[in-house]
Amino acid sequence: MKSLTSKDNPQYRELKQLASSSAARRKSGQSVLDGIHLCQSYLEHIDVPLLCVVSEASQHHPEVAAIMGECERRGGECLLLTDSLFHPLSQVENGIDILFLIVTPVHEDCPELTQTGVLLDRIQDPGNLGSILRSAAAAGIRQVFCSPGTAAVWSPRVLRAGMGAHFLLEVFEDVSLEKLIETAKIPVIATTPYTKKTIYDFDLNRPVAWLLGHEGRGVDERLMVMASDKLVIPHMGAMESLNVAACAAVCFFEQVRQCR
Amino acid sequence: MKSLTSKDNPQYRELKQLASSSAARRKSGQSVLDGIHLCQSYLEHIDVPLLCVVSEASQHHPEVAAIMGECERRGGECLLLTDSLFHPLSQVENGIDILFLIVTPVHEDCPELTQTGVLLDRIQDPGNLGSILRSAAAAGIRQVFCSPGTAAVWSPRVLRAGMGAHFLLEVFEDVSLEKLIETAKIPVIATTPYTKKTIYDFDLNRPVAWLLGHEGRGVDERLMVMASDKLVIPHMGAMESLNVAACAAVCFFEQVRQCR
Repeated sequence: MKSLTSKDNPQYRELKQLASSSAARRKSGQSVLDGIHLCQSYLEHIDVPLLCVVSEASQHHPEVAAIMGECERRGGECLLLTDSLFHPLSQVENGIDILFLIVTPVHEDCPELTQTGVLLDRIQDPGNLGSILRSAAAAGIRQVFCSPGTAAVWSPRVLRAGMGAHFLLEVFEDVSLEKLIETAKIPVIATTPYTKKTIYDFDLNRPVAWLLGHEGRGVDERLMVMASDKLVIPHMGAMESLNVAACAAVCFFEQVRQCR
Repeated sequence: MKSLTSKDNPQYRELKQLASSSAARRKSGQSVLDGIHLCQSYLEHIDVPLLCVVSEASQHHPEVAAIMGECERRGGECLLLTDSLFHPLSQVENGIDILFLIVTPVHEDCPELTQTGVLLDRIQDPGNLGSILRSAAAAGIRQVFCSPGTAAVWSPRVLRAGMGAHFLLEVFEDVSLEKLIETAKIPVIATTPYTKKTIYDFDLNRPVAWLLGHEGRGVDERLMVMASDKLVIPHMGAMESLNVAACAAVCFFEQVRQCR
């Protein structure tokens, strides 16, 4: 295994650039997976990484050693860093030092809406976006479509909140949701407080697309009028609305319930 | 209306201390509400604040002016700060400058579990905690009990994520969940993947207590064995688990559905 001890090494400088800059990741078409769980999920569901990076402190940790062993067995490359070189690369506090450098799994050729999917209109918060991806994957949804202005799906914070959901989904970024809805073959559902039709009374035992919008402003008005069905999650009491990731989970799992 | 222009003014220094230090807030028994929505909710549901603080930039904004007017009409005090004095007090980016200094609404005398409630065991993330409070309030739940080690309910980040839910709930902090469960008069439900009994097949048309645990480690094992019912949210596909706030929303709204 190769090891690096100098912060001036060009490969280390490139890694540091990729770990800290979303522009650098976008330009290179690469992403950084930070922490054991994401690395395990990627190995299990996708491939060996371009590079598996560990620290001196973590290299003998049994789970880290197992991941490194599997990478090397499958022809992947590992890199050992001193602890002080590793730490600036990681955002995981008190975690076990391991990260993967991967080719970002970009899904080109955005398909038409024919199966259950999620349409995200300018979701801002990385935690919300990751939570929505996680709930979608747990509900058996495969396709997620993100409008321009939605947070970067492959950023470290969204990856962390997604807990591996990224590797179970086809996520399409920078999608024109207008075009997608226009050609949709299935109901496109937006939630709103301004209706009496509830998600519980709507037939979800079929493919539908869930349209979810910006944390503060909700779904864009142009998209809202294009949705085929507006449904309410019935609230009790004076609270006006749910967090968008909570709303997503309630919708996705109401569909799971009805499809059982 | 009183106005301040010097950062050395003792009242301003105290405000800055309260805005930035959870220890200072705890010691004084006061909290800071940041932004229009929280201030409106507090005025509507609780009381006039100890102090309503606005900036020169925001004082003529119609919603801010309305809040200030109502505070003064109801005997509250307002304080005008220069923009450069206001900004270090606020964590809201690109918001409209207004904050309330309030007496933290502490609920002493933790009751026994007789009505639907939420038990939070060491929830760490302020965004998750706020989202859970918001979902609980939207589902008509009144009581939330937080173990020691749960994030501070009245911190600015939890308040922001709660979107006013704090003022619709009775939240008890530093509660011994063991004692609460021991004396519970209603089912105490924990979710787990290790059962076939689903939330959909369980009778939720009655008061229950929802036990939710730490983001990484789940509910503490000692509490888990005390729960009267372990239920699963059925997942499809390979995703192992939901974010805790998503899990909470699914549970609370399955109860809403069954209670309709």
